[in-house]
Order: sequence, then C-alpha cells, then structure tokens
Amino acid sequence: MTFAHLDSLALQPFRPNIASHAELGASLTMVVMEIGPGQEDTGHQHPFDQCGMVLSGSIEMFVGDERRLLQAHDGYFLPAGVIHGWKTFADAAKLLDVTPARPKA
Amino acid sequence: MTFAHLDSLALQPFRPNIASHAELGASLTMVVMEIGPGQEDTGHQHPFDQCGMVLSGSIEMFVGDERRLLQAHDGYFLPAGVIHGWKTFADAAKLLDVTPARPKA
Repeated sequence: MTFAHLDSLALQPFRPNIASHAELGASLTMVVMEIGPGQEDTGHQHPFDQCGMVLSGSIEMFVGDERRLLQAHDGYFLPAGVIHGWKTFADAAKLLDVTPARPKA
Repeated sequence: MTFAHLDSLALQPFRPNIASHAELGASLTMVVMEIGPGQEDTGHQHPFDQCGMVLSGSIEMFVGDERRLLQAHDGYFLPAGVIHGWKTFADAAKLLDVTPARPKA
C-alpha cells in the first residue's frame, strides 16, 4: 500500500486471535493489527523502539512501571529495551504499530 | 510521553502554520503534527521510509505518480528515496507521522 483506509484494510491471520497487514519497508515496518478479546502478552522487550496508536476498541498496555487502558486515538511510544506487554478484555483492539525494519533473514 | 491521547496532545510551533509534538527515541521519531489550511510542500525526498495516518481533517499527498486526498484513518507509507509532498485546502490536517530516528547532530 502507498495509501489505504486503515479501518477497512484486509488483514491476514498472523497468530492465534491476531490478524494483521504489514508493510515492510527498507527502514520501517508499519503494521495494522487486530487483536481479539481476552488475549495477553505478559511482557517482552527488544532493542528498538515501537510506537503507534489505537484505531478502535481498547487494549491495556504496560511499559516498565506504567500501565494504561488505551482507546481510540490513544498513542504509545515504547522505548528500546524496556519491558512491555498488553492485554485485551471484552473488546477487540485494532492498532497501527510501527517499528524499525528488521534485518532481513 | 509513553501513553497519550493524540487528539489532545499539546503541540508547539514547528514551522509557519505547522505545530507539532515529537517523540525522539533511539530508533524512531514519532510526531503528531497539525498543518493549517492552504499549506503545501511541493515535493522532497529522503533516504528513509516515512509512514503514518490522518487523525483528523484532510490532506492531499502524493508519492511518485500516486496522489490521494486523505482523511481520518487514511494511512500512508512513503518509501525511502521516492519524491513525495502534500497540500491542504480549506481544512487543517492532524497527522501521526513516524520516521526512523535521525543521526544525532
């Protein structure tokens, strides 16, 4: 995609209960991701920043000691090396998420 | 910011008729930018990807030969090295925009 309406972008199965569309550029990876209700990532870290925003629904995120229930148009910036995770409850969450491009395998 | 509601984030003057808030991470720069009506960037390029979405308002963008009027929740991915620009009309446009972090001066 160069331009696309993010709410109606076609998503593909990515992991159980997560569907996504990823744009793999030379220096950025831009992902639209929909996470179903009742899912959780209890925490992980990586040596690069990650940022984005909630398009619709709601998701709890934590980074370090900070925890917040995020809803539409709430943004996040997760600094490199800091443990972060997320949890959904009754709602699904659709996110726009950006990371640096990963080295090609 | 770690978490922030992007529609109500305090913006600072950045250039004439553009206000912004930039989050400068180790590997990503995340910017919320509000561009006033009747503004234009006739085209430029840079050797890194740029991506984001419209939070509110409308803005015409072009990249290479593709041109689109973008509105709320329309996203864009501008590949490294491709000439791109934008133009606003009667409306202001508020964007979430992400680029790789620039080398520190």
